[in-house]
Amino acid sequence: MLKFEVEKTCGRARLGHLHTAHGTVDTPAFMPVGTVGTVKAMMPESVAATGAQILLGNTYHLMLRPGADLVQKMGGLHKFMNWDKAILTDSGGFQVMSLSKLRKITEDGVEFRSHLDGSAHRLTPEISIEIQHKLDSNVTMCLDECPPYPCDRSYLAESTRRSMRWAKRSKDAFIDRDGYGIFGICQGGVHEDLRKESCESLIDIGFDGYAIGGLAVGEGQELMFDTIEKTTPHLPADKPRYLMGVGRPSDIIGSVLRGVDMFDCVMPSRSGRTAQAFTRTGVLNMRNKCHAEDDSPIDPKCSCPACRHYSRAYIRHLFQSKEILGCMLLTWHNIQYYEDLMRDIRQAIREDRLEEFAKGDFV
Amino acid sequence: MLKFEVEKTCGRARLGHLHTAHGTVDTPAFMPVGTVGTVKAMMPESVAATGAQILLGNTYHLMLRPGADLVQKMGGLHKFMNWDKAILTDSGGFQVMSLSKLRKITEDGVEFRSHLDGSAHRLTPEISIEIQHKLDSNVTMCLDECPPYPCDRSYLAESTRRSMRWAKRSKDAFIDRDGYGIFGICQGGVHEDLRKESCESLIDIGFDGYAIGGLAVGEGQELMFDTIEKTTPHLPADKPRYLMGVGRPSDIIGSVLRGVDMFDCVMPSRSGRTAQAFTRTGVLNMRNKCHAEDDSPIDPKCSCPACRHYSRAYIRHLFQSKEILGCMLLTWHNIQYYEDLMRDIRQAIREDRLEEFAKGDFV
Repeated sequence: MLKFEVEKTCGRARLGHLHTAHGTVDTPAFMPVGTVGTVKAMMPESVAATGAQILLGNTYHLMLRPGADLVQKMGGLHKFMNWDKAILTDSGGFQVMSLSKLRKITEDGVEFRSHLDGSAHRLTPEISIEIQHKLDSNVTMCLDECPPYPCDRSYLAESTRRSMRWAKRSKDAFIDRDGYGIFGICQGGVHEDLRKESCESLIDIGFDGYAIGGLAVGEGQELMFDTIEKTTPHLPADKPRYLMGVGRPSDIIGSVLRGVDMFDCVMPSRSGRTAQAFTRTGVLNMRNKCHAEDDSPIDPKCSCPACRHYSRAYIRHLFQSKEILGCMLLTWHNIQYYEDLMRDIRQAIREDRLEEFAKGDFV
Repeated sequence: MLKFEVEKTCGRARLGHLHTAHGTVDTPAFMPVGTVGTVKAMMPESVAATGAQILLGNTYHLMLRPGADLVQKMGGLHKFMNWDKAILTDSGGFQVMSLSKLRKITEDGVEFRSHLDGSAHRLTPEISIEIQHKLDSNVTMCLDECPPYPCDRSYLAESTRRSMRWAKRSKDAFIDRDGYGIFGICQGGVHEDLRKESCESLIDIGFDGYAIGGLAVGEGQELMFDTIEKTTPHLPADKPRYLMGVGRPSDIIGSVLRGVDMFDCVMPSRSGRTAQAFTRTGVLNMRNKCHAEDDSPIDPKCSCPACRHYSRAYIRHLFQSKEILGCMLLTWHNIQYYEDLMRDIRQAIREDRLEEFAKGDFV
């Protein structure tokens, strides 16, 4: 069971607190992605220093390597990766669809081959929940199918209803305990009626939180916002809402305005490794020659070490020289940018000025 | 001018202090290598946390990218790379021989093509000293030629004498100031008479310190020790002695016993990126399957974060998954191992028990 309280609302946006066995998560929250038990190129104490209170771990990656049994034997994912704050794990379903080969979906679950070595694996709702239990995840996600976009409506309806049956089986397999919880995942593509039906199915089952899945798969921001707007009214007001795999800063702000509380995305960390820097005035390509002799920081308003101690010229030099420190500094900076954004969003909700704040120029 | 004092001797080993404009270096000292302005995969504050008081920067790499003029414009190498302790730079000569193409050595200097883009460059004693001045190096090294091993004696004699003429030109080009100094480099291969002659030439010129170059190039530890043993007696007792590019822990201990004060080597950092861990009981390959389920630290006596917070199983998992954090943690650990070794060596000299200490089992 996970306690969640909404401290304040501002329009449909909510300022909340999710209490887990590994600390409280202030929402709206952004979760850096720690794919295989590490936020790439960062020490966990650095991730914590940015203000992050919760990480996302990938069940698909961790089940293949090093394996859930090993992580459990090592005392769970928190201890294994030296992160004592909260962890949310996805179900593995999304990566099975996006990374693995030779997938076969049945009512039982999904069979697939590892993208690492071609070995055969199987995920059912029960297996996914068991793996997440072994990882000691604070927030377990139901197994679902994330259909592609665009998608034939009849397949989408069939898939969504199967995902709802999987949600029931996931909930039944979940071992409830204090400070741990399970979230259902709403599907239904961009169809309001399917979304509504999906929400109602999930509420019937009863979850600690509700995720919106199947978005940010190519439908575009406008249609994504439209779908969120038509989905959140069907979700319980007293439970957290999590928009999976999203997104850019403007995606996040627009979704908070429509009632979403939690986000995860590889964008800040992946961008950090490819020399893209998020700043309050736009995204910079740090390989660009214009930075070669620039002794100013990436973002003078940022408190991260990259901005406090180094020039744009130095960061560019690191990327030109393919130095690991470039990835380290820029990942830190980007995660700091995202966590600062979330802190600013929470402050704007607290001060009843989120609409105003959202008018800023966000990428 | 650099102040150096020998606080205590123990046989031929010396406990000393080198005072620079960027802090004091306790000797015997190990200098982590910060090739292009970064100790690969480490934040400079982490390097300082290991106890390192001085870094080595590579003139060859820095002159090619980002260029000495840029570093000077950015306030010097200390500021550019956020390292406020001492920096020693090599002359570039060694990398010209080992990395660049189409070298041509004349009395004037050396012409070469960049290993990065094939562009033509020139290093003379005067140019090398000017570059090191622009980098704001605390310890400037003379330009010399590092002959291969084995090497024809007549060429070696000719090369050594040219290097001594270059040493004079280097010293003449050096702009002396408080807390900054220049070291001469003794050459002569494994020939005692050439080494003696080289030492005498350097002493005639007069330097703040004396390096032993041209060793650890394939002659083996025994012949290296033998050469050091026959060289250090010809060097002034009141100046620091630096064995360039060395080495393994046992190389360092054996050289300290023979009167050497300073060392640099890529071994700890490079090993950290290839999953090799230095420990008090030998070198471990962290990719080895035997670590897969081992929840003990790499080295229980080590104080670095890799050993305090992570299991061997986790470190192995990071290398198996090609995660940057693996390189980050293991580089930190190996640099910590080297800096701990130097601290233990200094303590053993202080307590008059270095011979006893050296009997330990060092790789």
